[in-house]
Amino acid sequence: MFDKATMLLKVDPLILSALEEDITSEDVSTNSVMPDETLGEVDLICKEDGVLCGMQVFERVFTLLDAGTEVTWFCEDGKEIKKGELIAKIKGDIRVLLSGERTALNYLQRMSGIATYTRSVAALLKGTKTTLLDTRKTTPNNRIFEKYSVRVGGGSNHRYNLSDGVLLKDNHIGAAGSVTKAIKMAKEYAPFVRKIEIEVENFDMVKEAVEAKADIIMLDNMTHEEIKTAMEYIAGRAEVEVSGNVTKENIAALTDLGVDYISSGALTHSAPILDLSLKNLHAIM
Amino acid sequence: MFDKATMLLKVDPLILSALEEDITSEDVSTNSVMPDETLGEVDLICKEDGVLCGMQVFERVFTLLDAGTEVTWFCEDGKEIKKGELIAKIKGDIRVLLSGERTALNYLQRMSGIATYTRSVAALLKGTKTTLLDTRKTTPNNRIFEKYSVRVGGGSNHRYNLSDGVLLKDNHIGAAGSVTKAIKMAKEYAPFVRKIEIEVENFDMVKEAVEAKADIIMLDNMTHEEIKTAMEYIAGRAEVEVSGNVTKENIAALTDLGVDYISSGALTHSAPILDLSLKNLHAIM
Amino acid sequence: MFDKATMLLKVDPLILSALEEDITSEDVSTNSVMPDETLGEVDLICKEDGVLCGMQVFERVFTLLDAGTEVTWFCEDGKEIKKGELIAKIKGDIRVLLSGERTALNYLQRMSGIATYTRSVAALLKGTKTTLLDTRKTTPNNRIFEKYSVRVGGGSNHRYNLSDGVLLKDNHIGAAGSVTKAIKMAKEYAPFVRKIEIEVENFDMVKEAVEAKADIIMLDNMTHEEIKTAMEYIAGRAEVEVSGNVTKENIAALTDLGVDYISSGALTHSAPILDLSLKNLHAIM
Amino acid sequence: MFDKATMLLKVDPLILSALEEDITSEDVSTNSVMPDETLGEVDLICKEDGVLCGMQVFERVFTLLDAGTEVTWFCEDGKEIKKGELIAKIKGDIRVLLSGERTALNYLQRMSGIATYTRSVAALLKGTKTTLLDTRKTTPNNRIFEKYSVRVGGGSNHRYNLSDGVLLKDNHIGAAGSVTKAIKMAKEYAPFVRKIEIEVENFDMVKEAVEAKADIIMLDNMTHEEIKTAMEYIAGRAEVEVSGNVTKENIAALTDLGVDYISSGALTHSAPILDLSLKNLHAIM
Amino acid sequence: MFDKATMLLKVDPLILSALEEDITSEDVSTNSVMPDETLGEVDLICKEDGVLCGMQVFERVFTLLDAGTEVTWFCEDGKEIKKGELIAKIKGDIRVLLSGERTALNYLQRMSGIATYTRSVAALLKGTKTTLLDTRKTTPNNRIFEKYSVRVGGGSNHRYNLSDGVLLKDNHIGAAGSVTKAIKMAKEYAPFVRKIEIEVENFDMVKEAVEAKADIIMLDNMTHEEIKTAMEYIAGRAEVEVSGNVTKENIAALTDLGVDYISSGALTHSAPILDLSLKNLHAIM
Amino acid sequence: MFDKATMLLKVDPLILSALEEDITSEDVSTNSVMPDETLGEVDLICKEDGVLCGMQVFERVFTLLDAGTEVTWFCEDGKEIKKGELIAKIKGDIRVLLSGERTALNYLQRMSGIATYTRSVAALLKGTKTTLLDTRKTTPNNRIFEKYSVRVGGGSNHRYNLSDGVLLKDNHIGAAGSVTKAIKMAKEYAPFVRKIEIEVENFDMVKEAVEAKADIIMLDNMTHEEIKTAMEYIAGRAEVEVSGNVTKENIAALTDLGVDYISSGALTHSAPILDLSLKNLHAIM
Repeated sequence: MFDKATMLLKVDPLILSALEEDITSEDVSTNSVMPDETLGEVDLICKEDGVLCGMQVFERVFTLLDAGTEVTWFCEDGKEIKKGELIAKIKGDIRVLLSGERTALNYLQRMSGIATYTRSVAALLKGTKTTLLDTRKTTPNNRIFEKYSVRVGGGSNHRYNLSDGVLLKDNHIGAAGSVTKAIKMAKEYAPFVRKIEIEVENFDMVKEAVEAKADIIMLDNMTHEEIKTAMEYIAGRAEVEVSGNVTKENIAALTDLGVDYISSGALTHSAPILDLSLKNLHAIM
Repeated sequence: MFDKATMLLKVDPLILSALEEDITSEDVSTNSVMPDETLGEVDLICKEDGVLCGMQVFERVFTLLDAGTEVTWFCEDGKEIKKGELIAKIKGDIRVLLSGERTALNYLQRMSGIATYTRSVAALLKGTKTTLLDTRKTTPNNRIFEKYSVRVGGGSNHRYNLSDGVLLKDNHIGAAGSVTKAIKMAKEYAPFVRKIEIEVENFDMVKEAVEAKADIIMLDNMTHEEIKTAMEYIAGRAEVEVSGNVTKENIAALTDLGVDYISSGALTHSAPILDLSLKNLHAIM
Repeated sequence: MFDKATMLLKVDPLILSALEEDITSEDVSTNSVMPDETLGEVDLICKEDGVLCGMQVFERVFTLLDAGTEVTWFCEDGKEIKKGELIAKIKGDIRVLLSGERTALNYLQRMSGIATYTRSVAALLKGTKTTLLDTRKTTPNNRIFEKYSVRVGGGSNHRYNLSDGVLLKDNHIGAAGSVTKAIKMAKEYAPFVRKIEIEVENFDMVKEAVEAKADIIMLDNMTHEEIKTAMEYIAGRAEVEVSGNVTKENIAALTDLGVDYISSGALTHSAPILDLSLKNLHAIM
Repeated sequence: MFDKATMLLKVDPLILSALEEDITSEDVSTNSVMPDETLGEVDLICKEDGVLCGMQVFERVFTLLDAGTEVTWFCEDGKEIKKGELIAKIKGDIRVLLSGERTALNYLQRMSGIATYTRSVAALLKGTKTTLLDTRKTTPNNRIFEKYSVRVGGGSNHRYNLSDGVLLKDNHIGAAGSVTKAIKMAKEYAPFVRKIEIEVENFDMVKEAVEAKADIIMLDNMTHEEIKTAMEYIAGRAEVEVSGNVTKENIAALTDLGVDYISSGALTHSAPILDLSLKNLHAIM
Repeated sequence: MFDKATMLLKVDPLILSALEEDITSEDVSTNSVMPDETLGEVDLICKEDGVLCGMQVFERVFTLLDAGTEVTWFCEDGKEIKKGELIAKIKGDIRVLLSGERTALNYLQRMSGIATYTRSVAALLKGTKTTLLDTRKTTPNNRIFEKYSVRVGGGSNHRYNLSDGVLLKDNHIGAAGSVTKAIKMAKEYAPFVRKIEIEVENFDMVKEAVEAKADIIMLDNMTHEEIKTAMEYIAGRAEVEVSGNVTKENIAALTDLGVDYISSGALTHSAPILDLSLKNLHAIM
Repeated sequence: MFDKATMLLKVDPLILSALEEDITSEDVSTNSVMPDETLGEVDLICKEDGVLCGMQVFERVFTLLDAGTEVTWFCEDGKEIKKGELIAKIKGDIRVLLSGERTALNYLQRMSGIATYTRSVAALLKGTKTTLLDTRKTTPNNRIFEKYSVRVGGGSNHRYNLSDGVLLKDNHIGAAGSVTKAIKMAKEYAPFVRKIEIEVENFDMVKEAVEAKADIIMLDNMTHEEIKTAMEYIAGRAEVEVSGNVTKENIAALTDLGVDYISSGALTHSAPILDLSLKNLHAIM
């Protein structure tokens, strides 16, 4: 659930902008045939198995258009849903239901798709001590929705953006001069509440990062063997994240390594949508 | 290519909003190790075969951050690119290159992914008189990028939004009372420059739509046989669009029907991203 | 009536901006003499005969300032009103009534003025098959209000803007190379739901436009005789719009031509306002 | 001329908003036939006699779309122009010239219309000591342009908005209890740099306003005789403004009264536009 | 009290912007431990003696986040408060109380600080005919709050900004050529409802300003003796403002001069905050 | 120095908003006497000893108004400046210099004031291992400027806002049930790149926080003795921050405790401004 502050400050402006994208003057089709408000109801139906995610956003599309719209939910975020299942009933001015339908579904399908995909990947880490993480490879202007969907699907969030986490990559290390210097400079510059994470590519860098007291070491595109060696050396002196084109297809190979975190851009950039639709719109007397 | 008006009015505000999503105060990692501007250069490299799309948007991320950034392109939108190919060189303040990297790639990968997928679907329609169309099933706040990518991939655009096209669906027909009445009401209400499209589900509705002089008839979720019957009846008296869960996997079955348009939501909601990355960042003296 | 989506997305932001234009810190006069909220009521009075238009906008100025303001209407958009007639009573905090008065009236007077003028012009087309159209010659940042007022006055709307309609003018034809080429290029480029309209200036262009299957042909600044010849040639193969400095004074000469549409910029750029005012403000116990 | 701060802070946002009203995705007609930038030039031609006003705004529409657009002026704001006169040449990307044309002309025609009308009214006050004033009866979101046009036409500006001037009307007087009390309360509450103006309807109120040391007394809807009596009593102890449905047709009757100011809402709400157009667009090699 | 128009148009956008500064995605601490809404209550306690100011702004922070938040006040703006005093009780979702706490207090402490400091300075002018004024030396994006606080503290407001008051300084005089010319030009250019104030530095300028009929003369950085001479010469022919690094420490020296106004930038740029805090947050069953 | 991304995304919008606060239509005084652009120059002079801070912001006010304005600096952020010292020369259109003066100085004086005060406090920690921190007690809509000024003055930044740092206070602990539970819940919920800080008030809580592996322990309002006991117990197992009404006057008492951080709200909420002004404006031929 997004709290009220997040809804007001972050979610509402994005939804409004999405609605403006779809309605630049009016919904011509609807206004052609329905000159007046008519109370109606429509069903939200699941069209393929998956994990529901995005109730608040779906509902907010309609209540922003008309505060009087009422959504009755028969399910909740994180629950598995089956093809044919009735997820919710939406009641309100039919014109609002029609005008908001596409935007509401575009959000809900995408968010549910990410939650569904994330859950299937997270399942592969069950029983291990490894946590599944997302990345910043999100769709522009949709990060808040996509990172939330990852959590609902059973993953955890890496840093939200460039301002709230320190991750020193090869270019930062190059600019600083060495792993040691980069970590030292980051500890001096960054607000002290930030952990310092550094991306390393070989064993020498791992050693240097441990000596320099990095909080988190990201092993990037290393082989299974290299990761094992690194883990033995690190031995709990830093948290360890493994990264590099991780998908559902290849993550199994990483589960026996005991790493703390595995991050996967695919969670947000490659999850297919979950098919959902509005059906049985009808007027209510 | 987006023209200048579209860039100014539609593209720039979305890019700025995407950058704000990623930088809420500063790029802490970069500023830790690079207190000063340093001229540098980085390569944009293709990591899997596909169709390039989104050059302007990619470049604009950097030139919005610093008008002095220069991008040299070795390719252009719509061209096929191969794994390992050098696509462009970006020259500018290294801090800008690092701060803009993720946002620029998030756009380019997604747009190229859609163009790549669309081209592969459009290829299946080659030699027919049928045009491939997108839908409004786009990612919120990304429609302008996704519809452009469909065009670059060889598809065409359906209406842009609810205000600039009339599409009468079952609920509109229900509200109006009949197919005939819905078309009549739309012709009266909508600006006369709009074509009137109507979605039908059975042969009776097809007949009524033709009589009522619909400009476009959308055959929704009909069988191959039903479509054939409808086409024979319509006989050029209206344009015909076929729709309903069309994907690369099932579109072949529709190619022999002689319909004018086939629309597919999958072009924008299910295309995987195309992998691209920035490599070899280095300072320039 | 504007629907709820249009109010939220298009109307409210413009009204807020108009209020900001008039109140950059506070209403100093009102606050000088009324430190506290006081419930009051005021009458909206018609000061010259005409057609009422803009109720929702007028009311929204006050309800945006204070959701508790109540407006009781004794009339509705499109109805004829007489000098001296009581149109509505507005009840609420007197300070809100005073602060919103000018902005609310500025909208209502202008919208009613356009509806009044349009109705008088449309009356001259009564009994013909010709529809009266507006143009894009609207006041900047007031198009949505002015196009609505034309509809209320009995006219119809031409395209809303450059994005939702295709109108090929001499410069477009010049750039394409010929009428035929321009129409062909537009049919290929524009979303297929757009009709293609082309502006022609002589008989040769008319012929070419018909051959090239333009949906609508605009006869621009042609003589009565030229229009007649064109109409005979076109013979229903395209819709026909006549345009060119059409006003109330000269439209009668065009009524016997049987054209589908006559468009007039004067509807929005030359209609005088309709005089309306707020009277009898008094406190209520 | 608007200064740079006003252009940046007030004019640019309004022009951008006006452009967004006209281009919600792209200029489809232009992009259909001109896929690439082409340097071109077009003439701004006067189509009826009047006073030019709005050069900066007209030019800014184009330079916002493309900073490289160049406008060469053969005239300037406040100069009289004749039918057929060449006012300016605009050189730039033809696509920008076409996309900006309507918005630029909508501003220039309206502003020139107000300047033209104002000059004709101001001419009737020539030789008197009376200054012609505008009011707050302006088009929403166009006040800055309309008040500027009044100045260019030879009028002067009354207060800009509710925050920067004190004008006590009957309702304020009623709330305060009396003319005397209203003036006293305003002197206490309002920033001391404000003059206090009060609207009066009869001779008793005039006397009370003078005693209470109003800076400006507005005689509202008084007869010629009443104004004369008031003027004799006031005798320079306050400035005097006359108001009430003043138009070009009836202002002459007020010229012999020696009042300081006459205000007329008609200057901004009833001035017809001045016809101007872009002609002879052609490509330049 | 801010009226409703000021709240809607000026206050709300600033508060929202302040909240966005503090919550760029979510309140992580609160959401960690409170996944659900819980009704709670917290006390607003005074921690040092002073003058309360900013109730509406404090309350609005919470009601913007959640319209259901209720604040019960035991005090009001302008009242003196004592260390330990209970000022208000705030009841609502505990998560909202925690997320809004800092922003609400940041406003209330600063505003109360200015009111407290202003009152202590204004007290030194008691019994004189001199009014204490603020300046434009306010904190960027906080002027409306700071000018209000000055009024609550017993001071008065000078002009609000560059647009709503005329103050001719040395550079304006230099540009015009002389005091006389500057005043003449301002009287011609500025809306006639503006008083003309001019800043002078010596007796010759005072004389010229009086001759030229300045409405207000500001004596800038003059000695006690110089002010006295100026006052005798002016003799009520213009209002007189004294300015120049006036603080609580040195204002006493100016009280016997009989000037109309003394302005002090210190009121807004040097007032220390007043310590206030939220205590005793607890859940309510 | 703010980098380019921060300037574009965070600083520019705030400066623009500050300018809009000061110019709601135009700079009337300046425009009265200077109808045309005139090249001029003015000196930025120091009027009391301190630390300069805010060059970029000061300069940006002018270059936003006119990109052609040039500022030549004779000093830089963090340098000590003396009364009477010439800090910079600003060259440009005199009208821009006058219109931007107050806003530019309001920023520079406040930022320099904070840097000056912070340096004086940080000096008292010299030779210790303790770092001086700011808090979130900043002026609304000025946090980015104030936190930067603290760094320039020699302090360090605590978390930027509620989203990018976890700080569990008494209410969070209460909601969670215990210190242990609160830390556990935060470790589970918060992105793993966040350190977990907890505020404790007594020795039992200190012990619990250490056991629960808090990253940072904030000792709030503890006595010297209590802090000493806590430090001995913690013994490096967590970082330690001391907080609670710390000012320049009382910080000395805390220097011998060996704590890692001392935070002080006074740095941003109580620093007096540093007096700076623009002098010697003159035209340049």
